[in-house]
Amino acid sequence: MEINGVQIDDTFAEAFPIKMARVQITAVTERWALEAAREATGFGTSVIGCPAEAGIECLVDGRETVDGRPGVNILLCNMGFKNLENSLLMRLGQCVLTAPTAAAFSGMHDAEKQFDTGKKLSFFGDGYQKTEEMFGRNIWKILLMSGDFIIENSFGAVEGIAGGNFLILGQNQMSGLMAAEAAIDSIRKVKGAITPFPGGVVSSGSKVGSKYKFLKASTNSAFCTSLREDGVCVLAEDVSCVFEIVINGVDREAIENAMRAGIHAACQVPGILKITAANYEGKLGIHHFPLHSVLE
Amino acid sequence: MEINGVQIDDTFAEAFPIKMARVQITAVTERWALEAAREATGFGTSVIGCPAEAGIECLVDGRETVDGRPGVNILLCNMGFKNLENSLLMRLGQCVLTAPTAAAFSGMHDAEKQFDTGKKLSFFGDGYQKTEEMFGRNIWKILLMSGDFIIENSFGAVEGIAGGNFLILGQNQMSGLMAAEAAIDSIRKVKGAITPFPGGVVSSGSKVGSKYKFLKASTNSAFCTSLREDGVCVLAEDVSCVFEIVINGVDREAIENAMRAGIHAACQVPGILKITAANYEGKLGIHHFPLHSVLE
Amino acid sequence: MEINGVQIDDTFAEAFPIKMARVQITAVTERWALEAAREATGFGTSVIGCPAEAGIECLVDGRETVDGRPGVNILLCNMGFKNLENSLLMRLGQCVLTAPTAAAFSGMHDAEKQFDTGKKLSFFGDGYQKTEEMFGRNIWKILLMSGDFIIENSFGAVEGIAGGNFLILGQNQMSGLMAAEAAIDSIRKVKGAITPFPGGVVSSGSKVGSKYKFLKASTNSAFCTSLREDGVCVLAEDVSCVFEIVINGVDREAIENAMRAGIHAACQVPGILKITAANYEGKLGIHHFPLHSVLE
Amino acid sequence: MEINGVQIDDTFAEAFPIKMARVQITAVTERWALEAAREATGFGTSVIGCPAEAGIECLVDGRETVDGRPGVNILLCNMGFKNLENSLLMRLGQCVLTAPTAAAFSGMHDAEKQFDTGKKLSFFGDGYQKTEEMFGRNIWKILLMSGDFIIENSFGAVEGIAGGNFLILGQNQMSGLMAAEAAIDSIRKVKGAITPFPGGVVSSGSKVGSKYKFLKASTNSAFCTSLREDGVCVLAEDVSCVFEIVINGVDREAIENAMRAGIHAACQVPGILKITAANYEGKLGIHHFPLHSVLE
Repeated sequence: MEINGVQIDDTFAEAFPIKMARVQITAVTERWALEAAREATGFGTSVIGCPAEAGIECLVDGRETVDGRPGVNILLCNMGFKNLENSLLMRLGQCVLTAPTAAAFSGMHDAEKQFDTGKKLSFFGDGYQKTEEMFGRNIWKILLMSGDFIIENSFGAVEGIAGGNFLILGQNQMSGLMAAEAAIDSIRKVKGAITPFPGGVVSSGSKVGSKYKFLKASTNSAFCTSLREDGVCVLAEDVSCVFEIVINGVDREAIENAMRAGIHAACQVPGILKITAANYEGKLGIHHFPLHSVLE
Repeated sequence: MEINGVQIDDTFAEAFPIKMARVQITAVTERWALEAAREATGFGTSVIGCPAEAGIECLVDGRETVDGRPGVNILLCNMGFKNLENSLLMRLGQCVLTAPTAAAFSGMHDAEKQFDTGKKLSFFGDGYQKTEEMFGRNIWKILLMSGDFIIENSFGAVEGIAGGNFLILGQNQMSGLMAAEAAIDSIRKVKGAITPFPGGVVSSGSKVGSKYKFLKASTNSAFCTSLREDGVCVLAEDVSCVFEIVINGVDREAIENAMRAGIHAACQVPGILKITAANYEGKLGIHHFPLHSVLE
Repeated sequence: MEINGVQIDDTFAEAFPIKMARVQITAVTERWALEAAREATGFGTSVIGCPAEAGIECLVDGRETVDGRPGVNILLCNMGFKNLENSLLMRLGQCVLTAPTAAAFSGMHDAEKQFDTGKKLSFFGDGYQKTEEMFGRNIWKILLMSGDFIIENSFGAVEGIAGGNFLILGQNQMSGLMAAEAAIDSIRKVKGAITPFPGGVVSSGSKVGSKYKFLKASTNSAFCTSLREDGVCVLAEDVSCVFEIVINGVDREAIENAMRAGIHAACQVPGILKITAANYEGKLGIHHFPLHSVLE
Repeated sequence: MEINGVQIDDTFAEAFPIKMARVQITAVTERWALEAAREATGFGTSVIGCPAEAGIECLVDGRETVDGRPGVNILLCNMGFKNLENSLLMRLGQCVLTAPTAAAFSGMHDAEKQFDTGKKLSFFGDGYQKTEEMFGRNIWKILLMSGDFIIENSFGAVEGIAGGNFLILGQNQMSGLMAAEAAIDSIRKVKGAITPFPGGVVSSGSKVGSKYKFLKASTNSAFCTSLREDGVCVLAEDVSCVFEIVINGVDREAIENAMRAGIHAACQVPGILKITAANYEGKLGIHHFPLHSVLE
């Protein structure tokens, strides 16, 4: 299979279940909604070492947001619901409650699993907090020095999927990076998906396990072109760089849409030789995304 | 005291000691160095609920960076050195090692306190990591799929100051927010200081303690203009909004420079009525910054 | 009529016919398509003194662009077709042909009026230019040092409308500016419309004519609150600032959609007192947009 | 000569005299100063087809600007003083006077050549304009709907240099583009210099003359790698892309500083094979910048 002359490997991306909440952050302008969203989703690349995986899903115009102001939807992801509840509490409390003119609404209003994060944060109001119905939602109003902070009482969460991915094999590092950027440009328009790594791109793809007992993941040595002379690298001679795009999505369809959009975009960039995907012989996860069927 | 017709309160900002490390992140372009820096400093507004306080200190041109590429200096802050070491390990490992083309160097090369974060992260290389002298620094080279990750062996840290601050009292919320933004524009050019809150601004200034035993800080009710009719708000009638700028700095001078730059900038914005500062009768910290002497 | 407590004046915006071409600029990434689009639409606020009115209409994902790469649609506007042809030639030749990895396609493929701008620019290829069918379009390929420049042979143009507008009356300048920014955030999502002034906002609304014979337009003195004491300003006492949003659109519907989106957004911002519109007793144009019927 | 393994050709950049004015644009925030500056410098790549060459020179903090607000310095360039005066009048009148909260000051206060652009624009005030001394400058205050526009009476201009340049030869297009971006990142910090092309980069380097009599410049065919098989391209086999950086500067030193900063930055990027410069056997200009002496 080829797209625009770029070979698509006949392999699959291996992904795993994760718990996921969507929060809609609104503010007086898009710029200020983005400031809150960036702070709230930072330090959120991988649950291996971050307190959550997090990312910006999409911008939402005032005609579609809960309160009619410009908004940004974010996704927060943790392995269990308990950690996810803590992420909601800390990230909304520290990064959205504190952000100028921001408000926070549940983006999974109908989910079965619900956390009363708004209620918990309302105590910051020191007795002056009030609950009322606004925008058809159950809202807490917390008085602040800069105005009232509006937050929904409950935030819903679902079981989603983490670790959807594809790998971009480039003639050199700059081709690979530009293709990764083009892929991210396109994935950003897909609903229900985030790419939690810095700028959406992973420079340091890993394998499960390592020669050190204390380390559960280590550099994907078989794909390190610096190890070609050592006979460790299995990549073709003309490849000199591999970037990975990791995608978390609310369901299989979101991951598939994001993979499709991203791969097509990457294949438009000069100097891209091949697209493949990362899998770990089933050691990592139960969700498999075969590239060819995703792209059909 | 007045600046541009804006009254400067005769009070002081109360701040406290914190441990602080500077990391210089470089990358192939300024844009990619910024992506890494934003990810590494996110979820970092206050140690009350974030794993660290963190922010971008300044952009650094290739003529001044360790490796001659565009760079961004960040500051990471924790109450103790042990937590700070963990922050370095996790934030550099998860957000810089993973960022396309990024490298990480110590920005406090001569500090007495040093952490071997680079060495610890080097194990990700799964035995293929190498140490060597580069740019006059002791460097680890970790092989990645996308190229080699360069990280300094040791990262220095010092005792700095957190919680430097001033308050902007505005005729309305939008005046206050624009003045806050103008203040941040100016503080961003000051060396040694960061403003860790979202977009550099705090919308939710707090007092120490609350009516709830389980809550150590709550909304600064005396400054909430929504509580004017309740007799709780102590602000003048014409004030309808207060934003706070919180500054962490490597030393007193950095905090003072940032306060001075920020206050002068805020006072240029129409609709600003007064500048004051937050203090807590010494309950919070030992460092006092009287506005009048800072501005002299 | 009120929106969110803000009074909507019972008046109309007065607009006039203009010739308009849409160009789709694509590039390797969205960022580079935007760089080309910004350069090509700069110095393009008003045909009073600019060689064209120009603006970015919308970002277009690779799944929707002609060549499958990230794109930006721009609109160029001139009073006559001859000037518009010159604008196309100069702005595409100087700002898109010269932009890294950029390509240019007609965004009004089916318009009756067509200019052979691509053919004219192809001579830059110095005899090495080639014409061929690509993407179902008639394309010129111009060899450049950095690769081949792809440009469609013909660019279509239609008669559109310039000068759609509304005025935001604020309690102070900062409220007005934030409301203007929120309005622009929302209008940016409307197809077929641009706001050609700096950042989308006009600070200097004008009236037709002046006391100087050589000047066809001058400051809208009746709306200058600095002239209140002189008895010239007709605005209510509590208004201290007026910003104008000027909208050019491909047809009445585009203007109406943009006005509706923008006014709703502006009315969400604290400190906005009233929305009105600029008209000139029919001296300026034949297109009238009554606010109340647009907002119904 | 080599920098970081990249060969530096022993040749020179050929440049020519141009008239140049610096304008300092300030606004309530850096973001709004930038919006005005971008509009005012757009459609300004080359005087071959643009009404001026224009670009952003640098951001200026409130501690250094004339009125204490955040600012952006821009440079406007034309072949003659008459055209330059017209550029000042049109670009300041259409893109700065109209920009929210903007003000405009001369950035060449002491130049011998002075234009009374502020005075000319003041007539827009329709008789309500006032002149007064502010910030030690001779200022016009023009009343607007959104507040008062402040503009200096006179704007100075000097003879500068246009067409300073260097060429980046890359292994492929993406390496070349990233190196160009890195070069621009670095040149942006150099005082007195601008890079007027889109995003600072030229994709379409040209030679003087063409096979068509009506065309004074055409594609630099000797550097078009698509013409290798035709025997026209003179570049080495491994080069597949060339980007040009064109620099205008207030004097020789500014051009040299920018070339030095840009070349050093470009040579840090993987996949760059060679740096050379464009010259035209003296047909274009009297200013020669030999790469080796500039880099010494």
